[in-house]
Amino acid sequence: MKAIDGNALRTQRTRRRVLEEAQRLFNEEGEANVTPGAIAGSLGISPGNLYYHFRNKDAIVEELFRDFEARMAVEPGAASGAAGAIEDLWLYLHLMLEAIWDFRFLYRNMDDLLARNRRLREHFNRIADRKLEAVARLCEGLVRARAMRASPEEIRTLARNVLVVATYWLHFKALRGGRGRDSADLGQGAYQVMALIAPYLVGEARRHLDGLSRAYLE
Amino acid sequence: MKAIDGNALRTQRTRRRVLEEAQRLFNEEGEANVTPGAIAGSLGISPGNLYYHFRNKDAIVEELFRDFEARMAVEPGAASGAAGAIEDLWLYLHLMLEAIWDFRFLYRNMDDLLARNRRLREHFNRIADRKLEAVARLCEGLVRARAMRASPEEIRTLARNVLVVATYWLHFKALRGGRGRDSADLGQGAYQVMALIAPYLVGEARRHLDGLSRAYLE
Repeated sequence: MKAIDGNALRTQRTRRRVLEEAQRLFNEEGEANVTPGAIAGSLGISPGNLYYHFRNKDAIVEELFRDFEARMAVEPGAASGAAGAIEDLWLYLHLMLEAIWDFRFLYRNMDDLLARNRRLREHFNRIADRKLEAVARLCEGLVRARAMRASPEEIRTLARNVLVVATYWLHFKALRGGRGRDSADLGQGAYQVMALIAPYLVGEARRHLDGLSRAYLE
Repeated sequence: MKAIDGNALRTQRTRRRVLEEAQRLFNEEGEANVTPGAIAGSLGISPGNLYYHFRNKDAIVEELFRDFEARMAVEPGAASGAAGAIEDLWLYLHLMLEAIWDFRFLYRNMDDLLARNRRLREHFNRIADRKLEAVARLCEGLVRARAMRASPEEIRTLARNVLVVATYWLHFKALRGGRGRDSADLGQGAYQVMALIAPYLVGEARRHLDGLSRAYLE
């Protein structure tokens, strides 16, 4: 029987608390405006204790980016039937937008962040590549199921537009309307993305999405 | 006969040079990383001379934002015929994307810029409101001309997606591919936005856009 290592547990717990507090402060004040000292102060631990866990702020940002990447790694399932696929996609978009909201500091000053850290840029592009592929695959599945009518080129173009709108919607809404979280913005983001796909759907898939859209608007 | 005022001309010329150099430096290095002293140094004038024209950096940013707003103020003309309207719209999108590129520093760290300056935020939202209206009006015109089939709600949703893709396309491309200007990115941005509108077009307008798109892709 292995003894529980109290020190290792405490270490892990402090790491987790630092990450959570950093994420909260970065989101509220912007990553560039938060120092490691401020994170330590806000947690009531010494800067030395924080530096024991993370050698600098970039190490914290990189670990948070890994968390973000894990949240983004899910993909819409292969539902049976076009109606199920449409509902799964809508739910999936909600999850993605929620992850983007929870890590919104990454999207604010993203240029500076990615210019400073080459590894983050590669990770960001890997996420984008995967999302483009996932959307294209999903559309190809709908075409095979005769729920969508779109050429391969239309699907590629559509996937890029889906990615741009999903990526920037919350940023755009924040600029338009102030800062407070608004769960309605997530819902509207999912609706806006579904509207990109809608005109390519046919038959029952189209009718099902139109019904979901009407329900959303009411 | 009015004498030419050499001093006034020189003053105006220096103001213009400061604005152009600031715009260039802001675009290259990010607005946050450029001081008024650096702008003066780059022009070979004294900081005192620069401060004679602009009391601080925000005054420079505000004047550049006014230039940007003027560039964005054009709207697609009321072409006769659906084919003409489609070509005008494509050209118009090029002009808008070019303006966004020329003032790309406004889009980098935009959160910080707008959080710092309430007036800029109002201007930004005024531009966005006008663009939403212009796109909606254009679509309504196409519907009346039987060149488009879309409900009022579809048009509102489409206008929002047009605005998001046009606003963020170049930012997205820069994150994806590095920093150098690429005129192909402008062309692709216009193509991506036209692709949002394409599925709602019918008849000759649709055929005309499909032809333009094929020509673009070749």
